[in-house]
Amino acid sequence: MSNFPKQPLLLTPGPITTSPATKEAMLRDWGSRDRDFIALTRHIREQLLELAGGGKAHVCMPVQGSGTFAMEAALGTLLPREGKLLVLVNGAYGARIAEIAHHMGRGSTTASFDEAVPLDPGAVAEALDADPAITHVAAVHCETGAGLLNPIEEIANVVAEKGRYFLLDAISTFGALPLDVARVPCDAVIASANKCLEGVPGVGFAILKQESLAKAEGNATSLSLDLFDQWRALEKTGQWRFTPPTHVLAALDQALKEHADEGGVAGRGARYQKNAHLLVEGMRTLGFKAFLPDSIQAPVIVAFHSPPDPKFSFPAFYDFLRDKGYAIYPGKVTAADTFRIGCIGQVFEKDIRGVLAATREAVAALGIARLS
Amino acid sequence: MSNFPKQPLLLTPGPITTSPATKEAMLRDWGSRDRDFIALTRHIREQLLELAGGGKAHVCMPVQGSGTFAMEAALGTLLPREGKLLVLVNGAYGARIAEIAHHMGRGSTTASFDEAVPLDPGAVAEALDADPAITHVAAVHCETGAGLLNPIEEIANVVAEKGRYFLLDAISTFGALPLDVARVPCDAVIASANKCLEGVPGVGFAILKQESLAKAEGNATSLSLDLFDQWRALEKTGQWRFTPPTHVLAALDQALKEHADEGGVAGRGARYQKNAHLLVEGMRTLGFKAFLPDSIQAPVIVAFHSPPDPKFSFPAFYDFLRDKGYAIYPGKVTAADTFRIGCIGQVFEKDIRGVLAATREAVAALGIARLS
Repeated sequence: MSNFPKQPLLLTPGPITTSPATKEAMLRDWGSRDRDFIALTRHIREQLLELAGGGKAHVCMPVQGSGTFAMEAALGTLLPREGKLLVLVNGAYGARIAEIAHHMGRGSTTASFDEAVPLDPGAVAEALDADPAITHVAAVHCETGAGLLNPIEEIANVVAEKGRYFLLDAISTFGALPLDVARVPCDAVIASANKCLEGVPGVGFAILKQESLAKAEGNATSLSLDLFDQWRALEKTGQWRFTPPTHVLAALDQALKEHADEGGVAGRGARYQKNAHLLVEGMRTLGFKAFLPDSIQAPVIVAFHSPPDPKFSFPAFYDFLRDKGYAIYPGKVTAADTFRIGCIGQVFEKDIRGVLAATREAVAALGIARLS
Repeated sequence: MSNFPKQPLLLTPGPITTSPATKEAMLRDWGSRDRDFIALTRHIREQLLELAGGGKAHVCMPVQGSGTFAMEAALGTLLPREGKLLVLVNGAYGARIAEIAHHMGRGSTTASFDEAVPLDPGAVAEALDADPAITHVAAVHCETGAGLLNPIEEIANVVAEKGRYFLLDAISTFGALPLDVARVPCDAVIASANKCLEGVPGVGFAILKQESLAKAEGNATSLSLDLFDQWRALEKTGQWRFTPPTHVLAALDQALKEHADEGGVAGRGARYQKNAHLLVEGMRTLGFKAFLPDSIQAPVIVAFHSPPDPKFSFPAFYDFLRDKGYAIYPGKVTAADTFRIGCIGQVFEKDIRGVLAATREAVAALGIARLS
C-alpha cells in the first residue's frame, strides 16, 4: 500500500474502506466465459442467497453497476407495463425509486413521510386500501440521508396481507442487518457489493422470488437491466449475458469469506452497532447533536446537526478531517443542515476513537464555540 | 501473483489480460465524492476524449457496466421516443443493437448483410433514401464474431450526407484502430475499458457530440443509463450520479498511461496488427483456414474454421490449450463452425508463438489429421 500513503479512511455510506485481502483478490485477470469464472459466479450467487435466507423459492441475480442499477433492474423487470407502483418515501433513496419509475414511464404514486420518522405500516395499509390499482410497493430499509431504519418487516407483512408485490432497497443494510426472505415476504431484495458486505463497487444484485420472476418475461424496457433474460442465460450457461466486472466479483468473493469469518450478519452487524454507539456517544460528549433519536438510528451512517456557530463551514471541517486521514460525508436531509459520519466498512473501535479525536482538534482549530 | 499460478493468458475479445501495474492500481479505496476521485474522473474523461480526437464539440460520458450498457445508454439517450433507428447488421453485435432498440420499444429497422462481408455504404445510402422516417443509424466498427472490420468512415460519411445521426459501436477497436471524431462524423462513439485500452471490465463510455446530447433531455427511459442527466451532473459537480466502480477507474487511468507510453493508438494498433499477422500466418502453416480474407480481418480477434476431422472437438481443444496456459474463445458466426483466437490485451509476439506451439501439440495429442 506504500504507493498510496494518503488514502483516507472512508466514513461514508459507500464506497467504503475494504480489507487489503479484498483488494488483493483483484490481482488476477479472468476470462468471463472460462470455467473458473463460471464457478466464481455460482459461488457468489449461492452465498448471497444464503445470507438472505433464501432457499429454492428465491434466486440471486447479479447486475453490473451500482445499487441503483440493481434497483432499476429489479423494478423494471418485476413491474408489468400495466402495473402501478407505490413508493414509500421518507428520504432521498425512496425519492430515487420514484424517479426511476417516472423515467420508465410506468404507473406510479408515492406516499411521503417525514424524513425523521420511520415509515408507518398503518398508513401504508390505508394507502393500499385507497388505491386498488397499485400492484407493487417499494421501500428502503435504511435511508442513509438521515441514517434512519425503517420497520421493514411490518411494512412487508402489510404489503403481503394486502396482496401486493414488495421490493425492498436493502442496499445499505444487506449483510449487517438481518433479513430473512423465508420469513419476511419480499419479491425482491436489492443490495450492493460495496456497503456492508465490504466489497469494492461495480456490482449490485437482487434476491428475487422465483415465482415472481417467472412471470416477468417481456416487462423490461432495458436489455442491459432485464433480469428475466439474465436469469434464463445464467440458468442455461452459468454465464453473464454481457461482460461482468470480473475483478470486482473476485473481490466480492474474498469479502464474503471475511464476512463469514466475522460471524456473518450477526458478527458484522455487532461491530457496526458498536461503531455507531461509540460515535454517537463520543460526538455527544464533544457537544454535537445527532439528527435522529437513538431508537430509529441505523448502525450504518449517523447524521449530526451542523454546529450553528458561524465559524463552522463543512468544506473546512471536511478538509481538516481529511488531512487527518478521515473522509466524512456531507448531509442529505432537507429539514436541517447536517453532516454525516459512516460506521460501515473496515472501521473498528480505534478508527472511531481516531475520528472523534480529530473532530475535537477540528473544533479547536476552526474556533467553533457553539456546537449545538 | 503467486496466489494465482494457473491464470491463463486470455486470447479473447475481452475481458483481456491486463498489465500487473494496471491491476495493482486497484490496491486503494477511493471515496467517490472525494476530491481525489473527482480529479481522477476528470483526467480519464479528458484522456478518452483526446484519444477520439474530440475537442470542445464532444464530451466523454462514462457508464457503469459493460460496453453493452454504454451502447444502450447512448442509444436510449440520443434516440427520441418518436425517432427511428436503422441498425446495420453483419454480425452478433449489430444484432444486439437491434435487440436493445426492440426492448426499448423505439422505432427501428435493420439492414442485414452477410457476416463474411463488410457493410456496403452504397446499400446504406439506398436504405436511407428508401425510408425518410429513419432519424438515426447505428453500426459496429469491428464485428468480433467473424473478426471483421467495417468501412466505418465511408458509412459515417454516407449517414452525414443523408442528414441522419450516427452511433458507432467501437467497443472492440477503441484505442487500437484510429478514429477521429473531428474528421469522421459521429454523434456517439461507444467504447469499453477492457478491450484495446487494456483496462479491467466494469466501465464503458460514450464520446458524444455535445450538440446532439444537448437536445436529448427526456429521451431516456432508464434513469441509470440517462447520459443527458449524467452529463448535467458531471458538468455541475464533477461527480457521478450513482456510485462509480472506483477501483476499475483507477485501473483504467493506469492502463491509459501505459497506452500513451506504447505510442497511443498507433503504437497499440501496430502491436495488435503484428500479433494478428503472426497468428494467421502461423495457423495457416499448421493447416488451419481463417474464416475471413486478410483484407477485411481486424487485428482484434481471428476466427478459424474448425477442422472437419471428426476427432476435433472444441471443448477438448479448449481444455488442452487452457492447460498449456491459453484461454481461446468459441465461434460466433452462423455460416460456419469456427473457433476464435484473440490478439488484444497484454499479448506479445512470444505469446502468439506460444499459442501456435501449443496448438501444434493439441493437433498431435488429439490426433486431428484433417485441419481444413
